Amino acid sequence: MINKQELSAVHERIRPFIHKTPVITSKLLDEISGAGLFFKCENFQRMGAFKMRGATNAILNLSRKQQEKGVVTHSSGNFAQAISLSARSIGIPAYIVMPSTAPQVKKEAVKGYGGRITECLPTLDAREKAAEKIIDETGATFIHPSNDLDVIYGQGTAAMELLEDYPDLELIVTPVGGGGLIAGTALAVHYFGKNCKTIGAEPFEADDAFRSLQSGKIEENESANTIADGLKTQLGDKNFPIIQELVSEIIRVEEEEIISALKLIWERMKIVVEPSSATALAAVLREKEKFEGKKVGIIISGGNVDLKNLPF
Amino acid sequence: MINKQELSAVHERIRPFIHKTPVITSKLLDEISGAGLFFKCENFQRMGAFKMRGATNAILNLSRKQQEKGVVTHSSGNFAQAISLSARSIGIPAYIVMPSTAPQVKKEAVKGYGGRITECLPTLDAREKAAEKIIDETGATFIHPSNDLDVIYGQGTAAMELLEDYPDLELIVTPVGGGGLIAGTALAVHYFGKNCKTIGAEPFEADDAFRSLQSGKIEENESANTIADGLKTQLGDKNFPIIQELVSEIIRVEEEEIISALKLIWERMKIVVEPSSATALAAVLREKEKFEGKKVGIIISGGNVDLKNLPF
Repeated sequence: MINKQELSAVHERIRPFIHKTPVITSKLLDEISGAGLFFKCENFQRMGAFKMRGATNAILNLSRKQQEKGVVTHSSGNFAQAISLSARSIGIPAYIVMPSTAPQVKKEAVKGYGGRITECLPTLDAREKAAEKIIDETGATFIHPSNDLDVIYGQGTAAMELLEDYPDLELIVTPVGGGGLIAGTALAVHYFGKNCKTIGAEPFEADDAFRSLQSGKIEENESANTIADGLKTQLGDKNFPIIQELVSEIIRVEEEEIISALKLIWERMKIVVEPSSATALAAVLREKEKFEGKKVGIIISGGNVDLKNLPF
Repeated sequence: MINKQELSAVHERIRPFIHKTPVITSKLLDEISGAGLFFKCENFQRMGAFKMRGATNAILNLSRKQQEKGVVTHSSGNFAQAISLSARSIGIPAYIVMPSTAPQVKKEAVKGYGGRITECLPTLDAREKAAEKIIDETGATFIHPSNDLDVIYGQGTAAMELLEDYPDLELIVTPVGGGGLIAGTALAVHYFGKNCKTIGAEPFEADDAFRSLQSGKIEENESANTIADGLKTQLGDKNFPIIQELVSEIIRVEEEEIISALKLIWERMKIVVEPSSATALAAVLREKEKFEGKKVGIIISGGNVDLKNLPF
């Protein structure tokens, strides 16, 4: 496992390429929750999500020779944009494999950051073949959106910054999708928190992490019919052991709880966040007694929403 | 006219009751506009809009005896919430006259801040009679949402803070509704800016300020079919002379321009703002050549939106 100094070095390495995002508090949400909530606003991160941190770290960790050949990933979400933008920041090509069915708005966003899109059929097999073909042709390096240690370490830097600003947080809550954010956060909490615990928040509709922690092996989502579209992805063999060791608990939330937490954040905090981000607040409000009277960090994972497709 | 010291005293007086709101910048919006834009985020103000400043100043300026009898206003918008919250902050009653047709969500918001609502028919006459009746019965003092000097001075403190942080702004742009914000801003710019000018932004659909400046007398809106619902109100005899003397120009914008500016702010800056707030950015993008290469302050007036009723 990475040690404390190495994790600090990750932060130093990516710092010039990312924003130190603000931490926002809300009297009203403190009243509603009975806790002291500190929202780490990765919706204000470059390209609008924490994924920028992990993507940047993974790319910076390649040799110059590898970098020159470019990077490839498959994602139709924030990681595609993150890889595109961080590749552009250091002047190398980014190849993005996306299902042909991905929304036009996401394709445009990737193109806007300079990513080169290869479309494929919306199957796992087609996606992997398309990525392999690019690797064969270009020599680019594949970077997985969440099941990659450099990505995981990069994602941990959001919690490091949060703990730098608020060292006495007692709990930090993050959404759980592919597992990169929560694994990175748990490492940061382990090394930089004082008696701080990491808690995950997951929709009942995509509760693979909850079930995996119960069974002790990676479980799959058979369906994932959740509004928190960033959380449909599955845990992987790199992040799961970290989660098993360092995450205290996963709290599952209903879809309506996600939507009302989302509404609270938009209406009361006046910030645009993704539904995925709202799962963490939803978890705090669902199991209030666990958080009451405590200082709680909440990672707002991102703010990339399709305004044409809101749940209100 | 108020002098510089008196305006500073206004700020000192209300400071304990308001937030110093953050100023946000956006690389992307700078690229799009060709200007350096500094957004003063009054959407993060208490109760979600700059109106808190003017309401607070007007209430604090009453004698203790007047305060005890309470304050009354007629508004179905942010000023109703602002008067309610600032009255509650100093422990006095607030009576709000609202048309029975006002949306339930606005009534709830006022009640949430402790305002006591009197409903009336949606006519000017009914509204004024209802206010007079309350004044007769309670001895409360009437405070106008925009045509009141103390309210105007209070609204000016947003631009004062902006100029404190960025003293070399060359232009400050605000939306124009009832005229309180722009008059207060123009006073602040006059006293605290260096070669800085105040520009107003107004929907073509409610362009009474533009026409009033042309004709030299207060013109009325015959209709006001704009998405910027905070800007439907008319100038008054207290703020118009200040606007005539100190505002350089009013730029009018189309409804589609307001909506695309709103979309830019939500999607790119990740903050929730009202359509009214977006008129200022819309004006900057419509008449680009006036702003290119300049440092431009933009007052984001508020963030209270009805999520069930968005233009996207």
